[in-house]
Amino acid sequence: MQDHYNSQRIAQMGKHQRANFINSLSGYKSANLVGSKGLNGVSNLALISSAFHVGAHPPLIGMIMRPHTVVRDTLQNIKDTGCYTINHVHTAIAAQAHQCSARYAPEQSEFIAVGLDEEYSGDFFAPFVAQSRIKFAVEVREIQVLQLNQTELVIGEVVAVLIQGDYVKHDGYVDIQKAQSTAVSGLDSYHSAQRIDRYSYAHPDTDLTSIWNEIS
Amino acid sequence: MQDHYNSQRIAQMGKHQRANFINSLSGYKSANLVGSKGLNGVSNLALISSAFHVGAHPPLIGMIMRPHTVVRDTLQNIKDTGCYTINHVHTAIAAQAHQCSARYAPEQSEFIAVGLDEEYSGDFFAPFVAQSRIKFAVEVREIQVLQLNQTELVIGEVVAVLIQGDYVKHDGYVDIQKAQSTAVSGLDSYHSAQRIDRYSYAHPDTDLTSIWNEIS
Repeated sequence: MQDHYNSQRIAQMGKHQRANFINSLSGYKSANLVGSKGLNGVSNLALISSAFHVGAHPPLIGMIMRPHTVVRDTLQNIKDTGCYTINHVHTAIAAQAHQCSARYAPEQSEFIAVGLDEEYSGDFFAPFVAQSRIKFAVEVREIQVLQLNQTELVIGEVVAVLIQGDYVKHDGYVDIQKAQSTAVSGLDSYHSAQRIDRYSYAHPDTDLTSIWNEIS
Repeated sequence: MQDHYNSQRIAQMGKHQRANFINSLSGYKSANLVGSKGLNGVSNLALISSAFHVGAHPPLIGMIMRPHTVVRDTLQNIKDTGCYTINHVHTAIAAQAHQCSARYAPEQSEFIAVGLDEEYSGDFFAPFVAQSRIKFAVEVREIQVLQLNQTELVIGEVVAVLIQGDYVKHDGYVDIQKAQSTAVSGLDSYHSAQRIDRYSYAHPDTDLTSIWNEIS
């Protein structure tokens, strides 16, 4: 049995039902907190499930932001200061991270409201989340408005990475599962992960092998 | 103890090490197979971990494609035919999905090479993966080259959704964990998921509650 949803059926869903449905379709999303600080000195923390890999060299990361949602202050800070941090949400801070999506007043810092601590590295202006185990500093490289729905695509370059603990393997892979990083599905479901396997680089006519036990 | 990687240290990594490292940073990624068919009738299946939510109304999904990798045939098919499918990778087909990233000859269909079956719905030109439990038909709406690194951003509109089984909740949320959809970290690690919780919509000064048991 296969249930079929065509465009008309999707358009006829209620707004929240459609938001839940469509947000589930892309699959698991990364759970990150974006740290920023305004020119007025007020720090800001926003939950973002839209961070995605753009390239490794230079190291680029993108995210989609809706200007009319709670990320508005974060987006303004990014435009004003050119920098932000991205901080992995691990299992123990998932509820606090989700709480950051509440509409706090502009002068209120989500760090204080949800009980997470600001951390600074060198002279980088934007705050990291002290509790986060994998986090990085990003400088804006490009912001463009997607004409299809007026969302903004922010692409930044990773300029520093901070990693607590021995999560980095010799081949560069970061064991984000060991760091208890979480994934999001839909708008509000948080998940931990269990490894199925790490597979070898695929070649035609060659069987895949597990590389998980090979790489320390 | 916190390990610090600055831009210089990242630039000095070997190419594969840096690719593993940077690809791990964004967090968990969705594991999807993109189905397409060329004007010559050859079907194509590419593993994509870069699909991301762009908007719910209209339902838009984006993905980043590197023209010089194995997705080249898929990207050409999408440009030629304007359509493709996105198919969730569940645990039982994770190895076959990863094998699709091998560089098969252009005239060879990955469906046949890895042992997955083509499925068609109505008169939609692009093939679905029969084994996939959550899959959708997409029509291209915009393709743009990101000048920062010459990757291509493909944004499409979801025009039909096919769901096997009772994964859709009354509020529209699709239980992708029940469907055993997988997540990717880095370039080659596949993960299943375990729910931490579904949290209520966040409001300032109100405690979050679990909505997981409320919604059938």
